[in-house]
Amino acid sequence: MKSDIQIAQEAEIKEIVGIAQKLGLKEDDLELYGKYKAKVKLDVFEKYSEKKDGKLVLVTAITPTPAGEGKTTTTVGLGQALNRIGKKAVIAIREPSLGPTMGIKGGAAGGGYAQVIPMEDINLHFTGDIHAIGIAHNLLAAAIDNHIKQGNELDIDPTQVTFKRAVDMNDRALRNTIVGLGGSKNGYPREDGFLITVASEIMAILCLANDLMELKKKLSKIVIGYNYAGESVTANDLKVAGAMTALLKDAIKPNLVQTLENTPAFIHGGPFANIAHGCNSVMATKLAMKLGDITVTEAGFGADLGAEKFYNIKSRFANLKADATVLVATIRALKMHGGVAKEELKTENLAALAQGIENLEKHIENMNKFGVPIVVAINRFPDDTEAELELVREKCEKLGVKVALSEVWAAGGAGGEELAQAVVELLENEESKFEYLYDQNSSIKTKIETIAAEIYGADGVDYSEQALQQIEKYKENGYAKIPVCMAKTQSSISDNPNLKGHPSGFKISVKSINLSAGAGFLVVMTGPVLTMPGLPKRPSAEEIDIDAQGKITGLF
Amino acid sequence: MKSDIQIAQEAEIKEIVGIAQKLGLKEDDLELYGKYKAKVKLDVFEKYSEKKDGKLVLVTAITPTPAGEGKTTTTVGLGQALNRIGKKAVIAIREPSLGPTMGIKGGAAGGGYAQVIPMEDINLHFTGDIHAIGIAHNLLAAAIDNHIKQGNELDIDPTQVTFKRAVDMNDRALRNTIVGLGGSKNGYPREDGFLITVASEIMAILCLANDLMELKKKLSKIVIGYNYAGESVTANDLKVAGAMTALLKDAIKPNLVQTLENTPAFIHGGPFANIAHGCNSVMATKLAMKLGDITVTEAGFGADLGAEKFYNIKSRFANLKADATVLVATIRALKMHGGVAKEELKTENLAALAQGIENLEKHIENMNKFGVPIVVAINRFPDDTEAELELVREKCEKLGVKVALSEVWAAGGAGGEELAQAVVELLENEESKFEYLYDQNSSIKTKIETIAAEIYGADGVDYSEQALQQIEKYKENGYAKIPVCMAKTQSSISDNPNLKGHPSGFKISVKSINLSAGAGFLVVMTGPVLTMPGLPKRPSAEEIDIDAQGKITGLF
Repeated sequence: MKSDIQIAQEAEIKEIVGIAQKLGLKEDDLELYGKYKAKVKLDVFEKYSEKKDGKLVLVTAITPTPAGEGKTTTTVGLGQALNRIGKKAVIAIREPSLGPTMGIKGGAAGGGYAQVIPMEDINLHFTGDIHAIGIAHNLLAAAIDNHIKQGNELDIDPTQVTFKRAVDMNDRALRNTIVGLGGSKNGYPREDGFLITVASEIMAILCLANDLMELKKKLSKIVIGYNYAGESVTANDLKVAGAMTALLKDAIKPNLVQTLENTPAFIHGGPFANIAHGCNSVMATKLAMKLGDITVTEAGFGADLGAEKFYNIKSRFANLKADATVLVATIRALKMHGGVAKEELKTENLAALAQGIENLEKHIENMNKFGVPIVVAINRFPDDTEAELELVREKCEKLGVKVALSEVWAAGGAGGEELAQAVVELLENEESKFEYLYDQNSSIKTKIETIAAEIYGADGVDYSEQALQQIEKYKENGYAKIPVCMAKTQSSISDNPNLKGHPSGFKISVKSINLSAGAGFLVVMTGPVLTMPGLPKRPSAEEIDIDAQGKITGLF
Repeated sequence: MKSDIQIAQEAEIKEIVGIAQKLGLKEDDLELYGKYKAKVKLDVFEKYSEKKDGKLVLVTAITPTPAGEGKTTTTVGLGQALNRIGKKAVIAIREPSLGPTMGIKGGAAGGGYAQVIPMEDINLHFTGDIHAIGIAHNLLAAAIDNHIKQGNELDIDPTQVTFKRAVDMNDRALRNTIVGLGGSKNGYPREDGFLITVASEIMAILCLANDLMELKKKLSKIVIGYNYAGESVTANDLKVAGAMTALLKDAIKPNLVQTLENTPAFIHGGPFANIAHGCNSVMATKLAMKLGDITVTEAGFGADLGAEKFYNIKSRFANLKADATVLVATIRALKMHGGVAKEELKTENLAALAQGIENLEKHIENMNKFGVPIVVAINRFPDDTEAELELVREKCEKLGVKVALSEVWAAGGAGGEELAQAVVELLENEESKFEYLYDQNSSIKTKIETIAAEIYGADGVDYSEQALQQIEKYKENGYAKIPVCMAKTQSSISDNPNLKGHPSGFKISVKSINLSAGAGFLVVMTGPVLTMPGLPKRPSAEEIDIDAQGKITGLF
């Protein structure tokens, strides 16, 4: 069995100028980063402003399990398959962070024969977007402490600074720090901490901005903390939003690469899917829709988190209307939802599957609420039996939902033709009646409770004292009429990671609510979220190497 | 008067492919970063391995004063002027850090009509080298704390970790920190701190490596601290040198840009000039020498620091032999060395000049010790009087050294023709008899004392108890037979910043000696060195802005 990097290195990669030409872009529309990567210049958006958008397909998934569901692989493979059957399809996905690349193995850009390339570059800095976001973040952080040290005209309360620092690495030692030690020439000591850069609000902002000036406006609204009177202090108050935007002048431009089968792929932005909305940039999605007839994009985690936010947050801010939802499942993962241990997944188990399939059914029910036509994609594994596949087909048919098998990991686009045909049929025959799940002008509680009831199937919401106080504070400060971004475990539709399948008879606990005023949403914390991962005992970094010819090995 | 950024934005920039073609490079030899920046692929070094090197000219300067000496501006202008008089000249200089760009105004890439462009890009991330260095640095830092937390097989003593973390920002609050707080899941609390990335040993290593495999070897030798037995622990012990090198796979490739007059310029690497050696990368210098007939490069701070290290460290590691030294001075700065206050520099003052000129004379005497022919470049200002210029000429003639006026800031290459002619005359008529000042196999003390006596003119060296112990320790651990890198104030030839001109009757105090085992030198601390600057009360960042068309303003 070849490793992902071996497959990627053996691919017949084409010059990106040629890939861009397939989309109607000229070389002058690009900023090349070597021969195989390019950024698309912003004036292309103006050139195409009158052109009709292509169709938009969102790939999401059942609740993740350790068995894996293959969402990105399916996204990439579906794009390849659509091209194989003659459609002008474009992929739009997130860019990987270096932290996980150096930490725990896990392809961040598809796998097997459904990958984006050049794989090494995409996983190692790519075009520098995440570093640019990190330094824009750290400029604002430095400006906060500098402002306080230089006289503190804004009366910032050092104990109420909520904006941390950032680094694109898994580094648990930086989760909780004290900074400013060593005497008054270094400022004043205070508690601080670091986020991994992809958890930065600036990443969320970059991914939700429709253009450069909206980016600046959103950056200027970031609330970094509070003054002694309890009033919010913003990046605008610190006068660095212009410099932060200048630092992001290239990062905001969508990156164009290709798949193993030379399908065009925009890989741009990658916010967390819990404390942020978990999708690639609005600008990449919109550009893909201008240039392709069908855009295939994805959202983080399972559909209860990723798709919900794609529809309620990203689609709202970008005025997007998806035409189809692809819900990815594996027989293995459904069996885990039915209680099977990871070691026993290779054995047929129809009883467990029948139980676990309730997870899929709940996600189908949820996705139907957005009015977008659905197809279920079974990411097929060698051990799946015919009887198991038939059971899933039966259940979906009862719900009136198409099912298609996908084998893109092993066979690339050729393994995704059944899925591609199913998607095309949906696009041609079923009209999307997309609508948001809630009115963003409704109260904070109404928004949270709507998602809890409609998506999670909860019996209600319990708020902590802190959360209730925060709701009042945000109402007073004018931050109530914005979407809510739910930070919840990805391992269950409920907020308890141990409840597999289709949980019921539970309430959602809201512990606290954080404000991402720049990004434009309230982050509702239903449990602890780690915004700075750690390295494992044997980090992937130990296996990564490079030889005299520059060939990289050990990257997964 | 136009600002630097205005001049830069009005320049007739040419496509970098054309600039490269002037040097004999094909488009396939490049990795483009947009139209106006490129990295040169490493296989070009092999292609040119048999080609004879061009001449090498080092630009250095008198002891810096607040009046400014214009070393980078002269370097860039000289390159332009040499091209104007028909020579195939190439420039090799350092790349700027974002910290100072956001902190205190100061062109990092020349000024006036002697600048490198695209100025905004070069000052804002450029091709991402410094970010790549920062994350390679922080991977190693994270690996240290992770190793200790995961069982500490290497017995690393947490109180003896010398390798800090890095960020490319002026952020004084990060000088001294405590990390690892919040309980055992986050590791263990210990004192730590951050360097600005350009002060990272990895920056020094990248700039001293002759090729990719040497880079890996040097990275693997970095000493991160000591185990409980007092033995050094390296990056190799932590098994991350391969991953660090992979992270630097593009950063190691020299960056090609151009000057305002389309002279090719390599801008690559930018280590500190106190705790490191302060020159652009060896690979950029060597590549420039392969491609151009004359390479003009520079070294940081005054000649006592920058040129001494260029000759004793960089030239030794890269086997370089310079053909000429250009020593930059201004009448204004020489008058400051003679005791004139900054406000009174516009007034002719021959007495003060005659006194201050001793600084120039001492640097000439020093540079002569390396056996490289010298020309003094007077970076002329409007207020310089004929009598003042004549005095400098006279003094230099007595020492047998050529003097040339330069007005490249105001007039670009045309203002540097006199200097260019003088340089060409040296190159054609005088042979370089370059030699190192000391044998690297001599004792640590001998090396330090040789520099102190020969370059600084000190009456001796005082060692602290700590320094003496460290000398013994390095001797025992096999780190004695490597060059010494002096960390000394740049404001005086002595180690006392207040002693202007040509100080005498002083001794050098060695406070401590740090090991940069990867870079391959011992850092001799003669006083405190700030490796993390702070932002000023009104940071430059407050003035930087970008408009809807992507035009940047306020960058100096």
